[in-house]
Amino acid sequence: MISFTCDYNEGAHPEILKRLTETNMQQEPGYGFDTFTKSAQEKIRTATGMPQAEVRFLVGGTQTNQTIIDAMLPHYAAVIAVETGHIAVHESGAIEFSGHKVITIPAHEGKMCANDLSNYLTRFFADPTWPHMAVPGMVYLSFPTEYGTIYSRQELHDIYDVCKHHNLKLFVDGARLGYGLCSKGCDIDLHTLCQLCDVFYIGGTKVGALCGEAVVFPKGDVPRNFLTIVKQHGALLAKGRLLGLQFDTLFTDGLYLHIAQHAIDMAMELQRMFKRLGIPFYIDSPSNQQFPILTASQMEKLAGKVDFEIWEPRPDGSAVTRFATSWATAKEHIVFLESCLQQK
Amino acid sequence: MISFTCDYNEGAHPEILKRLTETNMQQEPGYGFDTFTKSAQEKIRTATGMPQAEVRFLVGGTQTNQTIIDAMLPHYAAVIAVETGHIAVHESGAIEFSGHKVITIPAHEGKMCANDLSNYLTRFFADPTWPHMAVPGMVYLSFPTEYGTIYSRQELHDIYDVCKHHNLKLFVDGARLGYGLCSKGCDIDLHTLCQLCDVFYIGGTKVGALCGEAVVFPKGDVPRNFLTIVKQHGALLAKGRLLGLQFDTLFTDGLYLHIAQHAIDMAMELQRMFKRLGIPFYIDSPSNQQFPILTASQMEKLAGKVDFEIWEPRPDGSAVTRFATSWATAKEHIVFLESCLQQK
Amino acid sequence: MISFTCDYNEGAHPEILKRLTETNMQQEPGYGFDTFTKSAQEKIRTATGMPQAEVRFLVGGTQTNQTIIDAMLPHYAAVIAVETGHIAVHESGAIEFSGHKVITIPAHEGKMCANDLSNYLTRFFADPTWPHMAVPGMVYLSFPTEYGTIYSRQELHDIYDVCKHHNLKLFVDGARLGYGLCSKGCDIDLHTLCQLCDVFYIGGTKVGALCGEAVVFPKGDVPRNFLTIVKQHGALLAKGRLLGLQFDTLFTDGLYLHIAQHAIDMAMELQRMFKRLGIPFYIDSPSNQQFPILTASQMEKLAGKVDFEIWEPRPDGSAVTRFATSWATAKEHIVFLESCLQQK
Amino acid sequence: MISFTCDYNEGAHPEILKRLTETNMQQEPGYGFDTFTKSAQEKIRTATGMPQAEVRFLVGGTQTNQTIIDAMLPHYAAVIAVETGHIAVHESGAIEFSGHKVITIPAHEGKMCANDLSNYLTRFFADPTWPHMAVPGMVYLSFPTEYGTIYSRQELHDIYDVCKHHNLKLFVDGARLGYGLCSKGCDIDLHTLCQLCDVFYIGGTKVGALCGEAVVFPKGDVPRNFLTIVKQHGALLAKGRLLGLQFDTLFTDGLYLHIAQHAIDMAMELQRMFKRLGIPFYIDSPSNQQFPILTASQMEKLAGKVDFEIWEPRPDGSAVTRFATSWATAKEHIVFLESCLQQK
Repeated sequence: MISFTCDYNEGAHPEILKRLTETNMQQEPGYGFDTFTKSAQEKIRTATGMPQAEVRFLVGGTQTNQTIIDAMLPHYAAVIAVETGHIAVHESGAIEFSGHKVITIPAHEGKMCANDLSNYLTRFFADPTWPHMAVPGMVYLSFPTEYGTIYSRQELHDIYDVCKHHNLKLFVDGARLGYGLCSKGCDIDLHTLCQLCDVFYIGGTKVGALCGEAVVFPKGDVPRNFLTIVKQHGALLAKGRLLGLQFDTLFTDGLYLHIAQHAIDMAMELQRMFKRLGIPFYIDSPSNQQFPILTASQMEKLAGKVDFEIWEPRPDGSAVTRFATSWATAKEHIVFLESCLQQK
Repeated sequence: MISFTCDYNEGAHPEILKRLTETNMQQEPGYGFDTFTKSAQEKIRTATGMPQAEVRFLVGGTQTNQTIIDAMLPHYAAVIAVETGHIAVHESGAIEFSGHKVITIPAHEGKMCANDLSNYLTRFFADPTWPHMAVPGMVYLSFPTEYGTIYSRQELHDIYDVCKHHNLKLFVDGARLGYGLCSKGCDIDLHTLCQLCDVFYIGGTKVGALCGEAVVFPKGDVPRNFLTIVKQHGALLAKGRLLGLQFDTLFTDGLYLHIAQHAIDMAMELQRMFKRLGIPFYIDSPSNQQFPILTASQMEKLAGKVDFEIWEPRPDGSAVTRFATSWATAKEHIVFLESCLQQK
Repeated sequence: MISFTCDYNEGAHPEILKRLTETNMQQEPGYGFDTFTKSAQEKIRTATGMPQAEVRFLVGGTQTNQTIIDAMLPHYAAVIAVETGHIAVHESGAIEFSGHKVITIPAHEGKMCANDLSNYLTRFFADPTWPHMAVPGMVYLSFPTEYGTIYSRQELHDIYDVCKHHNLKLFVDGARLGYGLCSKGCDIDLHTLCQLCDVFYIGGTKVGALCGEAVVFPKGDVPRNFLTIVKQHGALLAKGRLLGLQFDTLFTDGLYLHIAQHAIDMAMELQRMFKRLGIPFYIDSPSNQQFPILTASQMEKLAGKVDFEIWEPRPDGSAVTRFATSWATAKEHIVFLESCLQQK
Repeated sequence: MISFTCDYNEGAHPEILKRLTETNMQQEPGYGFDTFTKSAQEKIRTATGMPQAEVRFLVGGTQTNQTIIDAMLPHYAAVIAVETGHIAVHESGAIEFSGHKVITIPAHEGKMCANDLSNYLTRFFADPTWPHMAVPGMVYLSFPTEYGTIYSRQELHDIYDVCKHHNLKLFVDGARLGYGLCSKGCDIDLHTLCQLCDVFYIGGTKVGALCGEAVVFPKGDVPRNFLTIVKQHGALLAKGRLLGLQFDTLFTDGLYLHIAQHAIDMAMELQRMFKRLGIPFYIDSPSNQQFPILTASQMEKLAGKVDFEIWEPRPDGSAVTRFATSWATAKEHIVFLESCLQQK
């Protein structure tokens, strides 16, 4: 059985395991003060072109979202996301657990629209009762989105402008950042991203690492006492070397983008294959998540052979499905998938 | 330079890295539903002799303490610890972050005394103003303690009796559990521990793993919707296989206790060596943390050669220090340390 | 200037001030153990026909919503409200402050529809990823709603059925309960309300008291250690007599419903008057809040003479407005308002 | 039966009820925008001699402590109190509910000592592991203390100096402030208090009001979006006039200090009476709480006639007791008490 259910079905990119093994006996201090972490921070500063950037490593996505949002907002402030945003839907109320309301506005193929945001904020502050409401202090968006779509440079620029106009922080969840950056048509790179938000993270877990997210404060304005905040959220890894070494590896010789590019190549291959078979898509995704609409009979053909995620079942037995690719996706997997679908 | 500063200076026990590498390409579902996690759970059930036990894997110690305490207490209830307990001192207020007060009672060489606990609770509930106070719902203790000391079976039994009398849960932080179980004079094993508390965890991070703590609910009464609770705390690892595989390895062929026993052997070797040199101890620790009191001149001899932790500096320039051993401590390290100390 | 902006523009019903003054020198214990509180609890038990009911007094609406929701839900659970619900909009994130997500579903003239709720919950629990979402544990609704509308017995019955089917609590915010019960066409009374939810409160602040909300647990299942929970939320009034005496007064000789009936009479008078003048309504409200749509010129006529709330300004200069009545509204106020509107 | 159990046994000072009644029909906006509140704020600015001071009214003490501490601290920071401080003991974990640890240091007759504080903070920041601990951001103290004792100007000055040296806020809980200011030997008044802390409150509940605490930010630096923060804590009173009018009354013609002075006079009368009877004191309190140590037989004589609080029962049947005075204490009460104690 081959699985396309997600981009974290396998362990880690082999280079990571190799280096973990090579460096295993090296004694290092804990909590992110090891030499691997320092080296990874430096490499990410170089990759982003921001010498003053501050970089911190956390373990997982929800943890990172909760910690960053709570660290950067006053306790009473709310964060705005689109209604399909990860923090609004799939984080078990982790943001509210830390005391912050998640305000949702409409999503357009998973994306936030600067106009919607501007209208919301203008109406909000025009309402004389706003002090009785949770005051927005941050905008959260995912790049790429939960639907695999990506923002253009202009779109992100417009959203950031609205944020600055209303004095809100802009936080970009890059759990799958690499896939977004390598998507066809993407006109954003790490350098430009640093200009277009206040904080973002470079996802490791879903882009070849065992775990780990690299939070980047491009302007260097990491919240005061950040290590304490991280620990308070239960998010401080004792063997910080595990995170440092993985990102050091991912940012050596361009491995991070290399991994992402391979996944995008495989995703485009998948897309072409589905199109060849006349299978329609729920959404036109340029990144590593593809959302073909399969009929009941097509899904039956895959049963027990190829696994994928049911995104949205439909009354007629068909379903929007999700197929994700990663560094570990091989061309043969797609060939096999196609052959299954072509079976009579 | 050789470091004795803590028991997590190196990566992981080599067997863990070997198995991570071997299983790397195996596709597995996320969030703890992988085959390694299932196997590890089964092995821990066997090792504890509790077929009905429920076992869950979290990433780190503070995270585990926060998640378990918050999951098992009503929102308003407090947890009692000794004043030197990890949750009371070194977790950046992570327990309070989740809304719970940590009530402290005196420590005796790091340990809680059943009598103190009983007196506290009796006085508390005799005070007619108690509803105006944070109501204790749980007792937290560390085994071994932050000072390397261990509870006897009788001591733990007595504490658990007090807990049951007052209807409190007993939670044992086993971040270094292996070292406690292998300590000379310890009359507790995993089987008996299951009878003497409501929940405990088997520390991985400090006992040979890259990360990971195995929470055991001996009676199988894992809190309802526990996965949701874990995710709400930002503590759900996407690649749960990383935790599952490590504990599966640690509980194969007795590796966990083997690692711990080696560290204890090295700690006793250390202890003998210090005693040989006439160096006194702050506390008589039977486990993998040793607390010799070094003079300024002794510390000078080690400078740049052997690293250790300053536990408590003293006005005369001497200091209580901490030397920790682990699976990675070699006899040669101790020989080298001794030779440094013997230098003129 | 006469104000119709809200139902808490004046102090308290004179009978309350009279009894406060009469009983002022009587020495009483604090925190709700006074004789007035006991008497008020007994009178409310009688008025609801529930001898086993437990009644507790809190100070204000948002405080009550926060305390009750937090007291009755496990820490990780969410509460469902309509998108116009008070807890979702106008409580500054007080529910999220206590850690709980507010999930919103569509409102129909301010009301929740049992079908929407049922569909939401069915879809929620059918989604295999639900453990990654905030799990609903309670339904919140307002009676009357924020738009002055009321639920029929059947509607409330159907919602409660859905709640019981999915094992959720039903909580009715009765900040304006009296006005709902006295609305024309209302087929619910205190007796039936007790059968149709798990907990509700009888609003005092907006129905003639200086402050105070009476929380009723019809089945007597007040959460364990409730006084501690109330104090933990900063909601325990030292001079509980202030709340007890007010509700004791309100539930003597039917004063509570008498006050509400007067306000409804005045609201219907208002409604007739607006209709007479050909002024349309935004919504057909049977309770003490009326929402006429006034033109710019009509609003100009009232400027400096009659105050009201702008609910929703419209581009053409007109606005949905809110006029509220209370025990203190006199017929002369309405006559004066009409005369202002009729000015050339 | 006459009760000396606390200073909130009666309703309110009659002048307050009189003015509540007189102003009852005056229509006023809610939430603290009424004319009474504005007038009270102005009068308090005058009484404190701080024209730039910001004054806000909350309902009760625990609520005020929770709201102010949470509003003025970053989410991760802790507050330091003495071990007998109200927030450390008698607030049901309300501070921890909002996420903040309460760190305790020793009390000296209820008071904090600047040296202890300085030593704690110096040791704290000298400990290299401090980022793993809850970082102190504020010092809390009560004036007068829970034991009726008061700080001298010098003592408060020294504490404030330590706070400023370590960049901590100083918050003075003045739930019984009036009694402290009127105590014999007190060399602090409202003017000097404004120079000696960052924020304090003037207690109303225990000094003649039905409820209410006036928070004073002497430098005018009220936290941004404070109304939202207050509402988020469930602490915003709809009929803010109730608080405004009471403080307006208390700060008209010196009523506040007049009330307090009467209570102190009665307390000194009590003290003399107990001394006359040879009854010893637990502590030498200059304020309105007196702590005589009564024998079992003395307490028996009072049974059913005079009520007081048992502060600390002793094995021999005697007890430290608390007798509190207030505006409502009459000389006859003390005469009656004495006659009871003198009975054979």
